[in-house]
Amino acid sequence: MRNIVRRAAILFTAIATAGALSPALAEDGYDLWLRYAPLEEASYATPRHVMAACSDPSATIDAALDEIDRATQSMLGEALPRADTLQGGTLVLASPECSGMLENLPLPSSYEVGVDGYAIKEIRHSGRQITLISAQSDIGVLYGTFDYLQRMARGQNFTGVNIVSRPKTQLRLLNHWDNLDRHVERGYSGQSIWDWHRLPGYLDPKYTDYARANASIGINGVSLTNVNADATVLTPHYLEKVAALADVFRPYGIKVYLTARFSAPMELDGLPTADPRDPAVQAWWQDKANEIYTYVPDFGGFLVKANSEGQPGPQDYGRSHAEGANMLAAALEPHGGNVMWRAFVYSAEEPEDRVKQAYTEFVPLDGQFADNVLVQVKNGPLDFQPREPFHPLFGAMPETPLMMELQITKEYLGFSTHLAYLGTLWEEVLSAETHATDQRAPVASVIDGTAHDYEITGMAGVANIGSDRNWSGSIFDQANWYAFGRMAWDPDASAEAIARDWAELTFSRAPEVADIITGLMMGSREAVVNYMTPLGLTHLMGTGHHYGPALWVDDLGRADWTPYYYHKAMKDAVGFDRTETGSNAVDQYAGPVAQKWAGQDTVPDELLLWFHRVGWDHELDNGNTVWEELVRRYDLGVSQVEDMQTVWHSLEHEVDAERFEQVSAFLAIQHQEAIWWRDASIAYWQSVNGLPLPEDVAAPARDLDYYKSLSFPNAPGQGE
Amino acid sequence: MRNIVRRAAILFTAIATAGALSPALAEDGYDLWLRYAPLEEASYATPRHVMAACSDPSATIDAALDEIDRATQSMLGEALPRADTLQGGTLVLASPECSGMLENLPLPSSYEVGVDGYAIKEIRHSGRQITLISAQSDIGVLYGTFDYLQRMARGQNFTGVNIVSRPKTQLRLLNHWDNLDRHVERGYSGQSIWDWHRLPGYLDPKYTDYARANASIGINGVSLTNVNADATVLTPHYLEKVAALADVFRPYGIKVYLTARFSAPMELDGLPTADPRDPAVQAWWQDKANEIYTYVPDFGGFLVKANSEGQPGPQDYGRSHAEGANMLAAALEPHGGNVMWRAFVYSAEEPEDRVKQAYTEFVPLDGQFADNVLVQVKNGPLDFQPREPFHPLFGAMPETPLMMELQITKEYLGFSTHLAYLGTLWEEVLSAETHATDQRAPVASVIDGTAHDYEITGMAGVANIGSDRNWSGSIFDQANWYAFGRMAWDPDASAEAIARDWAELTFSRAPEVADIITGLMMGSREAVVNYMTPLGLTHLMGTGHHYGPALWVDDLGRADWTPYYYHKAMKDAVGFDRTETGSNAVDQYAGPVAQKWAGQDTVPDELLLWFHRVGWDHELDNGNTVWEELVRRYDLGVSQVEDMQTVWHSLEHEVDAERFEQVSAFLAIQHQEAIWWRDASIAYWQSVNGLPLPEDVAAPARDLDYYKSLSFPNAPGQGE
Repeated sequence: MRNIVRRAAILFTAIATAGALSPALAEDGYDLWLRYAPLEEASYATPRHVMAACSDPSATIDAALDEIDRATQSMLGEALPRADTLQGGTLVLASPECSGMLENLPLPSSYEVGVDGYAIKEIRHSGRQITLISAQSDIGVLYGTFDYLQRMARGQNFTGVNIVSRPKTQLRLLNHWDNLDRHVERGYSGQSIWDWHRLPGYLDPKYTDYARANASIGINGVSLTNVNADATVLTPHYLEKVAALADVFRPYGIKVYLTARFSAPMELDGLPTADPRDPAVQAWWQDKANEIYTYVPDFGGFLVKANSEGQPGPQDYGRSHAEGANMLAAALEPHGGNVMWRAFVYSAEEPEDRVKQAYTEFVPLDGQFADNVLVQVKNGPLDFQPREPFHPLFGAMPETPLMMELQITKEYLGFSTHLAYLGTLWEEVLSAETHATDQRAPVASVIDGTAHDYEITGMAGVANIGSDRNWSGSIFDQANWYAFGRMAWDPDASAEAIARDWAELTFSRAPEVADIITGLMMGSREAVVNYMTPLGLTHLMGTGHHYGPALWVDDLGRADWTPYYYHKAMKDAVGFDRTETGSNAVDQYAGPVAQKWAGQDTVPDELLLWFHRVGWDHELDNGNTVWEELVRRYDLGVSQVEDMQTVWHSLEHEVDAERFEQVSAFLAIQHQEAIWWRDASIAYWQSVNGLPLPEDVAAPARDLDYYKSLSFPNAPGQGE
Repeated sequence: MRNIVRRAAILFTAIATAGALSPALAEDGYDLWLRYAPLEEASYATPRHVMAACSDPSATIDAALDEIDRATQSMLGEALPRADTLQGGTLVLASPECSGMLENLPLPSSYEVGVDGYAIKEIRHSGRQITLISAQSDIGVLYGTFDYLQRMARGQNFTGVNIVSRPKTQLRLLNHWDNLDRHVERGYSGQSIWDWHRLPGYLDPKYTDYARANASIGINGVSLTNVNADATVLTPHYLEKVAALADVFRPYGIKVYLTARFSAPMELDGLPTADPRDPAVQAWWQDKANEIYTYVPDFGGFLVKANSEGQPGPQDYGRSHAEGANMLAAALEPHGGNVMWRAFVYSAEEPEDRVKQAYTEFVPLDGQFADNVLVQVKNGPLDFQPREPFHPLFGAMPETPLMMELQITKEYLGFSTHLAYLGTLWEEVLSAETHATDQRAPVASVIDGTAHDYEITGMAGVANIGSDRNWSGSIFDQANWYAFGRMAWDPDASAEAIARDWAELTFSRAPEVADIITGLMMGSREAVVNYMTPLGLTHLMGTGHHYGPALWVDDLGRADWTPYYYHKAMKDAVGFDRTETGSNAVDQYAGPVAQKWAGQDTVPDELLLWFHRVGWDHELDNGNTVWEELVRRYDLGVSQVEDMQTVWHSLEHEVDAERFEQVSAFLAIQHQEAIWWRDASIAYWQSVNGLPLPEDVAAPARDLDYYKSLSFPNAPGQGE
């Protein structure tokens, strides 16, 4: 971070001496990373024409051609003309389905690009130099087109270009937690973009732009509704609306999924039970699936949250998750649909350690799920915290395809006003080694199917998209949507490379600007960890809404919803003992991992209090006690935000005023809230441990009672 | 309407023969009537420079100059240069507060322009021909500037211009029914635009554009919160946010008001009572008012819904509305604030006729209200129906300033997808003659204070503004916001002239296009009346959400919330007898009015079933029976929507694609819903009266059970 501050200072000086720059045009963020900013010079090997290799292109190829029109109009000042016959300098789109007009085009093999990968190559064909975007399917061509246009927008040199890319996962989904009344659970960017009331009669152009944005990063599925599900969406009145959205998304290769409320047969049609062994219940779901496919012939399937946080499920009838999932899977199977069954479950009976339960519940079911079921597992065993260890299920279910569920919306990382790039969080999880096989088997190899030879693979991201003009509530939160798509396509991708691509597309091709923004992003999540939950602390947020600190709460309906449950701070010690002297959750990990994390000396500081209960005077490698280090990290978090403000300020003349001002205002909010987190946390810990503050550390601005007195009944995104 | 269809056909032909036109640029409606479309030729007497007559202009004069920059940049291709010294062709802004730089400018007198009116005149000054926008206050200059720019945008000739305009009412307010969680009661355009969570740290540029739009039509106050009030907005945490909005609005002459929950002293500070005679309660409100003014020095005052639909109020303690209002008024009085006390009250005990109750309750209180209290009365005695007679309170409270409350949001007129211009509805009410004085005393003369010499005057409109990109949910609903401002400024204004101005500003200066759109608008509200509630029928909408027909509902918690209560249809007769043989509500009107409406032969057909209960075979002047005429009007309503579709279609090449498509989609929804209204209504009436349909009328598409079976749990805008 310091390095970035220095660079920013240099840039700032350079700009100041260069005199007044022409002010950039205001941008409101609607265009996302598809802004296609004008290219100063028509750069390297820019094509002069475009053509599709077929006379009657599909809607998908048309979408690719439209995108080329739009992008080149914006970047080059006029849209590339369409060529009827092959000329030198033509950009050609081709696939097996789109190939009649040109003979002997060298299409890539399935082996190279799979079903929906693509190749972008400069070749000579019929004596002419052309750039060919080709694939085994039209949707592959569309993906290749988006990649090509984004590279052009980043100023890439296409001379001799030879790119082959294929996704490592098959199902790359956004999960919207959107209710039918347009409330978004954990949404911080306005209402749901699904305007159910005006559907199907009105198709907001935004739906198409949403599909474009998703296709541009390879997302190929969207679950429209909240996992805390409302069966109403399965009625004809709503299926008509769902079908209208599916029609908009189809050319962009995006399938629609719905959340299935397990008790729907009872609620919609008065069945006396939802027991998955009951033949009437099975028949109901089969009929319902058949009905859905009449509305949406390529319906993707069901996403299910069952027997979790009050949702109904098969356990209500003494049946296992596998039985429940398989019943739905059987209904979808004739149509090619999948079930995504969430592993985010924990007992209503509050056993000793909530983070152990998904593993305990699901591992015994390994091998029992139908072939078209995926089990969807959150990145960590708790709940999308700023930092968690990877989920112990990864690597522990070799016979069951596991999808990873990431949360793009920042429920626990400051909502939409804190700048926190999640690419680094996800990279940390994906690169973590499970040691599940002879190889080190990083989590990514579980997700992409290579570790256990899964037949189906996927990744889901809980969307941060809403009705706000900029989609995600803030400009920098757009980066998390972007990074999710990129990492679902390639779970081994580099968070830094993705950040840089995004920064270039979103703000500026100028290398010094992209450097600074990338640096800002790369350090941002760790800053949040520092001012909220350093050293493996977790889940200290305000009750229900998760806004701000509430470390002191210990009296909710169930213990494992309270911060106290997670830190157990007392006069002498702090932390959750998950070694064999405690809950032994650490034992759910493979040997080498468990061994490392079980030792107070071998566990990394970042996970210390997650796995261990230690004295406040426990000494860390750096010589600080836990208490000293905690306080130091809070302070560090605050100063990191101050650095981010300094860095951002240096870009004032590099970014249009509207986005510059919004980011500035949000950073100021983040700074204020980081101080709030630090001060409230320190005040609380001191009330428990009675320890003095290390020298040179300022006392909290207010007393603990003040922080306890704050209430936020209208904080956004709450469950309803 | 037929006439408009013919004109549209002619235009369509003209365009078709002229060949392809250049496609208009897509517009999303964000710019409202302030689009400032480019002028083809720099037209009549366009100024060449602009200057303010002061060296240190106020924020308000700066706002006027900024608007001139923006508008001329857009209309003329470059912003008018600012002049330092007077030159020929300069546009000069001047007021008593802004006058130092030019001597002897002829400012208009208070008599001419009042506090916030203005004059726009071409004059010679110091030997130079200039255009002078001047007023008695800077805000008057801003109003004049907006008028000038809108006239320029409509292509007006300014040669020898000499315009003087002053508002006829003092307080021109929008009432937002916005909850603190951003839900908008009766909102059909997304969430509340007040992003409370991100305030005060983030000031969305939208807030400034909102203020600009309001100032451009003379609106000078805004009540931010729902009349079904939440006391939380009166806490410091929220007052800080309110102050931030007030700071944005101040340069635009817009004061902030809040809704005051009568029980706030109990809810916020645990007082045992909210009795207005209790000194502790009085002191609480005085302290609260003092506190509010420390945040917002020019706070406008309180809007109060008390003892109405479950809201607490003075009657809970046996005190009158006047006592309740006066307590709040006393708290505001030292600071210059006002109380707007709503007369929309009806007993929880369901007496014989709900529409009589406000009159019964308030007339005896005439003269008892403090000087800074206005009583705010809805246009009609029921609740913003497609058609009602004017409210009998108008003219009946000579000692109490009555504000009119209009509903801009279309709770009962098809939400945001039905095209219904409300200017004609409001004009009908404002021009209705109360006969309250020797003169005929139209309602407008009560509102503007002339009928009874009110000291304060005002008009309030329940806003239709939300987070939708186009502000109002549809393009044509923007016209209702616009018309409200214009009619609050001048209650005698012509609905047609306003429609035409709006059409020119919003769509096109081309006279044939503006003609067509104006015609479309002028007939639109009557179409809604025809397909929903013809012949004086009323309140037949779906329970709670008011979406679609529900004539059959007769079993709600209280009778006067059911449609049946309002139509009382039986085998032999239909309608509500409000003559002396019934509730005698008609007697609340002055003699000549009561006399006319009390007679079955003298009441206009439009109000027949509002005031009378008649047989289905009752014969109307046109020879039709009530039954025949009802059916005919439903059919007419549907065909009027079809005409609107035809007319709109003729404008395809005159309007940008984005707005054209949205309006087209909404008209298709309206058409479908008009048919639904017609068919469901006819099916229900037939189930009651057993009468055959007149010849040539098609039977309803579905049976009554089908219409009864429809349910819309997630319809937008419901109370919470």
